[in-house]
Amino acid sequence: MINVALMGHGVVGSGVAEILLGHKADIAKKAKEEICLKTILDLRDFEELPYRDLFTKDFASILQDDSIRVVVEVMGGVTFAYEYVKACLLAGKSVVTSNKELVAAKGHELLQIAEEKNVNFLFEASVGGGIPVLRPMAQCLSANRISEVVGILNGTTNFILTKMVTENMPFAQALSLAQKLGYAEKDPTADIEGHDSCRKICILAALAFGRHVYPEQVSTEGISTLSLTDVEYADRFNCVIKLIGRAKQTDGEHITADVYPALINRSFILSGVHDVFNAIVVRGDCVGDVMFYGRGAGKMPTASAVVADVIDCVKHLTARKYLYWEEGAPDYVVSTRSSQTRLYVRATNGHPASAAVAIAKAFGDDSIFTIKNNSSQEIVFITPPGQESALRQKIAGLTCLHDPVILRVID
Amino acid sequence: MINVALMGHGVVGSGVAEILLGHKADIAKKAKEEICLKTILDLRDFEELPYRDLFTKDFASILQDDSIRVVVEVMGGVTFAYEYVKACLLAGKSVVTSNKELVAAKGHELLQIAEEKNVNFLFEASVGGGIPVLRPMAQCLSANRISEVVGILNGTTNFILTKMVTENMPFAQALSLAQKLGYAEKDPTADIEGHDSCRKICILAALAFGRHVYPEQVSTEGISTLSLTDVEYADRFNCVIKLIGRAKQTDGEHITADVYPALINRSFILSGVHDVFNAIVVRGDCVGDVMFYGRGAGKMPTASAVVADVIDCVKHLTARKYLYWEEGAPDYVVSTRSSQTRLYVRATNGHPASAAVAIAKAFGDDSIFTIKNNSSQEIVFITPPGQESALRQKIAGLTCLHDPVILRVID
Repeated sequence: MINVALMGHGVVGSGVAEILLGHKADIAKKAKEEICLKTILDLRDFEELPYRDLFTKDFASILQDDSIRVVVEVMGGVTFAYEYVKACLLAGKSVVTSNKELVAAKGHELLQIAEEKNVNFLFEASVGGGIPVLRPMAQCLSANRISEVVGILNGTTNFILTKMVTENMPFAQALSLAQKLGYAEKDPTADIEGHDSCRKICILAALAFGRHVYPEQVSTEGISTLSLTDVEYADRFNCVIKLIGRAKQTDGEHITADVYPALINRSFILSGVHDVFNAIVVRGDCVGDVMFYGRGAGKMPTASAVVADVIDCVKHLTARKYLYWEEGAPDYVVSTRSSQTRLYVRATNGHPASAAVAIAKAFGDDSIFTIKNNSSQEIVFITPPGQESALRQKIAGLTCLHDPVILRVID
Repeated sequence: MINVALMGHGVVGSGVAEILLGHKADIAKKAKEEICLKTILDLRDFEELPYRDLFTKDFASILQDDSIRVVVEVMGGVTFAYEYVKACLLAGKSVVTSNKELVAAKGHELLQIAEEKNVNFLFEASVGGGIPVLRPMAQCLSANRISEVVGILNGTTNFILTKMVTENMPFAQALSLAQKLGYAEKDPTADIEGHDSCRKICILAALAFGRHVYPEQVSTEGISTLSLTDVEYADRFNCVIKLIGRAKQTDGEHITADVYPALINRSFILSGVHDVFNAIVVRGDCVGDVMFYGRGAGKMPTASAVVADVIDCVKHLTARKYLYWEEGAPDYVVSTRSSQTRLYVRATNGHPASAAVAIAKAFGDDSIFTIKNNSSQEIVFITPPGQESALRQKIAGLTCLHDPVILRVID
């Protein structure tokens, strides 16, 4: 029998407790060992729960209990989570977490301690909720050189964008619907400004390319300024707008890592991922594109991923060897503006016809672009592929375009 | 350093050799151990290859070489593959295979020998080619009770169906195009009659539900009799026709396991999987639907999955604990006709209007059905949900329907 402690009894934590206590026999069969939830750390009282006797407010009682071999951290945040997780690993306990903020900020350091102590630090639930992605990427795709990871990493923003695309619902209304349905927090900043996606692309990039990526290194744009107008034009170009996280190897020594709303061509499988679903595409040199799809958040999906990691810990009480990455470096992440892309541009102009001539001159007569005019004298086009910074320079040079909205296109 | 032997130097085998020899440094880093391809078994001569010295025609030289710890079997077929794989496992060597026919026929027995000998028998590449699915299903979803596995498991038939749907190409023409492009064999029987999908659903079902499923227990229909007419009608019902493999838990003691062409509603993510791509949806009680997507066949995707298993073997030279299932049982797989479904029906009738009255009477006034007539006086409708055998009985009772074509609908 292996004793487990749970730190945090919020949404995910209560789901973990539910599965560990409710599926006990099934889990014992899979782990080939009985797993006993011994202690739950939370500052709140849960007098109504049948398992109220398991609660403690004292972290030291977990740390000092040598019978506890695996600790689950689902408190969130970095301050206490970091201190407690580090202490547990140093004490020779394996740790499982769903805390993307912690892994994105301190992943390398904690993995290194885990390796030194020959215990596990697992965090499958930190990216994609219940979708298996980190372990398959590290294990099953290990014979591939991964060149790119791109995904829809946040269910809240994908729900909002789906409503905007399919029902023409303005952003503010879609956000308040998401809040009503429990998909968005009261303070939705982390989701809609892309911070949540940023942490997840940090973790994916670190695992794919072997070096820590810090959130501060990732250029991050959210969706709060997206207008229905762009959503509608995207549709005319056979694209949908999605908030994506993307990391690409550039020259073997550097990567790009960014979060931004982009036009996704409908021929690309990611364009079909709707509502609160997440999906991650991994591009390998042998396998081509592989996609992992499912519910990226929610109590039970996330909790089930945490418990799967606990089962894996119990099966392998010494360090699993597939998860590791090196320390980050200040110049490791480079700007995506040196990469090739196409750009979507929307601007206003009093004289669309003459602007069209200027655009054609800038991007070549045979360039792929379309101009649509409406009563507001808007000009909309997609550039041919080119280096992003050069394309932007050309667009800036077109003084006929007023206040252009510029979005990247992914084919 | 770990020595590896390769049995079979066909399409996948030559890909395995290419990766093991060409990515040597990368692989050593990932496996934390150098992996040396020592011997290749093949009856043919490959004098032009730079690694021609590795070839042998003598299986005994592999079996008796104690320095060979991992053997890759990519010969295909069951006769020799079974004999050789069994001998290798009994000799204490781990075995990696992509041979779905072997795993579907002998998986339980070989897994049992591997467990007794404390070595690995891994076969990630046998389902979905390079798509990670078996390991994620067994490891990452281990906290879930899986209720259903359904997938597009064969790239050749999916390519043919995509051509039929998007380009209105008749079956025979789409097949010959697939052959021309190298997606279909000269003798395409195993693909188009569903045998290949059948072996894969056997393996998925065994892993998902814990008991061996034999190909003879799976009712298997192919796509060779599908007509363009049905493809077109499917589209009018907002569906696409796909060849699927599907296994479902019924009562905890039994499962259904079937291969058949079905109408897939466009709102279901599987409907968007086109061309040679494969995708597998796994339904868990905690996680909901998770989908794994990618190229399901081809030299390099499949070879990369084989090599990933080799790396896993080298990292864990004693038995990995996640792959196992019990012996099968004669009455374990039950007919899907007791399950709930909707049925698509197309039939001819000289008097569509009176037939419509009979259909409405049989399936209720408010039942979901649509009738389309064309010059050939065809009647097409979709029944409301019901037990399949009862629905079929009702349809058989409608004597006004001549030679009905009946297909299942998946929503």
